[in-house]
Amino acid sequence: MKIDLNSDLGESFGAWTLGDDAAMLGLVSSANLACGFHAGDPAGLLATLRQAAQRGVAVGAHVAYRDLQGFGRRKMEVDSADLIADVIYQIGALQALARAAGTHVGYVKPHGALYNTIAQDPRQAADVIQAMLAVDAGLPLVALAGSPLLGWARAQGLTVVAEAFADRAYTPSGALLSRREPGAVLHDANAIAQRMLRLVREGVVEAVDGSLIPLQADSICVHGDSPAAVAIASRVRSTLAQAGVQIRSFVA
Amino acid sequence: MKIDLNSDLGESFGAWTLGDDAAMLGLVSSANLACGFHAGDPAGLLATLRQAAQRGVAVGAHVAYRDLQGFGRRKMEVDSADLIADVIYQIGALQALARAAGTHVGYVKPHGALYNTIAQDPRQAADVIQAMLAVDAGLPLVALAGSPLLGWARAQGLTVVAEAFADRAYTPSGALLSRREPGAVLHDANAIAQRMLRLVREGVVEAVDGSLIPLQADSICVHGDSPAAVAIASRVRSTLAQAGVQIRSFVA
Amino acid sequence: MKIDLNSDLGESFGAWTLGDDAAMLGLVSSANLACGFHAGDPAGLLATLRQAAQRGVAVGAHVAYRDLQGFGRRKMEVDSADLIADVIYQIGALQALARAAGTHVGYVKPHGALYNTIAQDPRQAADVIQAMLAVDAGLPLVALAGSPLLGWARAQGLTVVAEAFADRAYTPSGALLSRREPGAVLHDANAIAQRMLRLVREGVVEAVDGSLIPLQADSICVHGDSPAAVAIASRVRSTLAQAGVQIRSFVA
Amino acid sequence: MKIDLNSDLGESFGAWTLGDDAAMLGLVSSANLACGFHAGDPAGLLATLRQAAQRGVAVGAHVAYRDLQGFGRRKMEVDSADLIADVIYQIGALQALARAAGTHVGYVKPHGALYNTIAQDPRQAADVIQAMLAVDAGLPLVALAGSPLLGWARAQGLTVVAEAFADRAYTPSGALLSRREPGAVLHDANAIAQRMLRLVREGVVEAVDGSLIPLQADSICVHGDSPAAVAIASRVRSTLAQAGVQIRSFVA
Repeated sequence: MKIDLNSDLGESFGAWTLGDDAAMLGLVSSANLACGFHAGDPAGLLATLRQAAQRGVAVGAHVAYRDLQGFGRRKMEVDSADLIADVIYQIGALQALARAAGTHVGYVKPHGALYNTIAQDPRQAADVIQAMLAVDAGLPLVALAGSPLLGWARAQGLTVVAEAFADRAYTPSGALLSRREPGAVLHDANAIAQRMLRLVREGVVEAVDGSLIPLQADSICVHGDSPAAVAIASRVRSTLAQAGVQIRSFVA
Repeated sequence: MKIDLNSDLGESFGAWTLGDDAAMLGLVSSANLACGFHAGDPAGLLATLRQAAQRGVAVGAHVAYRDLQGFGRRKMEVDSADLIADVIYQIGALQALARAAGTHVGYVKPHGALYNTIAQDPRQAADVIQAMLAVDAGLPLVALAGSPLLGWARAQGLTVVAEAFADRAYTPSGALLSRREPGAVLHDANAIAQRMLRLVREGVVEAVDGSLIPLQADSICVHGDSPAAVAIASRVRSTLAQAGVQIRSFVA
Repeated sequence: MKIDLNSDLGESFGAWTLGDDAAMLGLVSSANLACGFHAGDPAGLLATLRQAAQRGVAVGAHVAYRDLQGFGRRKMEVDSADLIADVIYQIGALQALARAAGTHVGYVKPHGALYNTIAQDPRQAADVIQAMLAVDAGLPLVALAGSPLLGWARAQGLTVVAEAFADRAYTPSGALLSRREPGAVLHDANAIAQRMLRLVREGVVEAVDGSLIPLQADSICVHGDSPAAVAIASRVRSTLAQAGVQIRSFVA
Repeated sequence: MKIDLNSDLGESFGAWTLGDDAAMLGLVSSANLACGFHAGDPAGLLATLRQAAQRGVAVGAHVAYRDLQGFGRRKMEVDSADLIADVIYQIGALQALARAAGTHVGYVKPHGALYNTIAQDPRQAADVIQAMLAVDAGLPLVALAGSPLLGWARAQGLTVVAEAFADRAYTPSGALLSRREPGAVLHDANAIAQRMLRLVREGVVEAVDGSLIPLQADSICVHGDSPAAVAIASRVRSTLAQAGVQIRSFVA
């Protein structure tokens, strides 16, 4: 048994620090690096990329809408010409920084509002897929387990990596419970770790109504933007490891 | 006899258009493409890159300080960690867009205040050189003919391309006359074309005091940001071509 | 009979010029000045504000989403805390520039995607209204004639100014025909001027199906972003003036 | 005896938090609020302004170069037209937010590289002074005690407020020791508090060579960007208060 653990890193910007990149690089097998549009100044990214290279953590491009003020969390109606080119631009910028750091961009994971939008919206999804094909058709796309995006991307020839969220509640239909709902974000490190162990072993996760839903995931997303989040990630990792699950990136 | 003609393109941004990229791509052999920091939105860059690919015009990364409001023309005291990473980021972003357009980034030419600063400032020059080495040590650097930057870059193993400015007056010491001085910018298309022909043939240019100064240039920079500028560029090209000078990029 | 003519000005940014502010200030009675979020650098705004002050043209704050790349034309899901504060910030910035130029901000007109969104969306509309009340409850709001926004703003105590668009086609229900439909933008200067004269005299405009629809407008929006647009604005003004209609701002 | 304590607040931006505004508002008499160019998103500023209003803390506009990535700490060669208008824009934006929060902008204190530059550079100093006169000639300018800026501003009719830095070492000539020198930043809360008490009582501060230098200060700047900084500010306040010094803003 094996699974990938991924986390959003490189989300500082200039004088502003966010998250504990060094701590998370000791826990995850894949680091989603911001690309400058929602967060991530080049010098900070280069420093985190060097650490990722040293620790053998795989690196992905965490592409986003151009929205520093909103941290890429606000849905934007970006037309296709812009969205395609914006995604290419971001991947390329991170590729060069990664090369300078002695590593390479091994996958793409859209961020925030773009992630949520393309999980369901075929037009914006097609734009992101087209951008990836234009840069490197071999780059895997990390996408929400159970979302239509997985099929759209596969149909265009991309490798897809389905991901589950460690600290999020699921509806009986297999969707993420909206953050606006009570209980949407889980906080009990032990319970979270056990959920993820069950997910890896049995391919199921318990929904908010207690029902078990099948969820096929190649990667688990853990957060690192607070000390509590780092503690949860650490517990997920140790629980999986003790159960004999290998934590390993899907990137060759 | 041969020479490269280069021009600054891709300097539009969103709703704002600057210059006539299509016209200039019919005149030059090398296009310096903005990289998003002083100008150049990704969709506009991609469109210009596609045209450059179609016409066989070589493409360079026109890297700049991060300053949209000042169009990269304001000197900034950027520290080394930031400057190195900012340059890597910009080159990489353009590389991916170029690949998507069926071409590639063949050289680097810094823009505006960064261009002027590194022509003389060894610290910022070393930062730009280090950034280029980190991305691709084979990328040539286009720099001001006669400037100390040429030697600094060669000493670090970079190929350098010395450039002259078609529409600028030179001091007797071989420097560009400051734009604040009267007569710094030349406007007579025929006189400009004859100056450049003499430069190519004899390796000299007439300074503001009438003296002849030696100037070894591999490339001539022409502007395209107004109808008059396009007309000058056109005259330079036709005058050189009629005299049997080949207009050809230094990019293999 | 009297009417206000308004136009979007101050939409240049740094090295990028858009529209012919000087020409338009000779034609309109009200100038909607960009506030830096979709366009408008402070120095350019100050220059246009001085010209507006000299010519006695009223000035309004053309507030927008924060989106330079998209020119404020992309819908964004901005939450209330941000939208309220962003609008206050923009109005205040323009107020100080206007004061420095010897004039004052006499009204508010949202721009682009924000304009279209709040014409129909009660939540974002309430945010803009709340921002205006917080700055100065006496500032009139310019809004689309026939839109629900007019009533929402009046109910909160704002003065509203209903505006018609000179160069846009209307549906039989009184809405603007979407720009994606053929014929949405009118180009015949004479026909446009006659439509606007009829609007002022009779309070009706001919819809795309030939039916006459009632439209009560206190202001007519004319564009100035191309030579053709300036020519249309000029024809509208002269046609109205020759028919004895006073061109006068609603700002006291 | 009385003195003003000021601190830089409102320096968060969107998802990024910096400093502990709530804690500092319990310690200082004047809050320098970022204006969006180096830090400070409008919604965050509005929240801090409301707290300042509740606690009766005076508010100043902490105007800066337009440089989010560099946090306004990088010197930029901004021309006069831009610098004047940029400063007016920022003051106005904060004025409207302050009004919405039930308070008002009582003074101006330039930030970072702009602060250091205008302390010595007469051209940029004149630009900032001109901007302040254009907005409100009654606004005091907070400037480095001992700097030529104080005289330049007074000569143009501005009220000036000289400030000392609690946690910085001074040279024998009364300048701040450069941050690049060892010992430039002081860390011993008790020693710092005693220095500031002596400054208020005797008008002197001990320089790095042990000599006493006269320093006339109307305000003391304390920092709040780390828990240690808040502790120092707290100690300065309590030491002064226990010695009978009134902590009171210079703003009427």
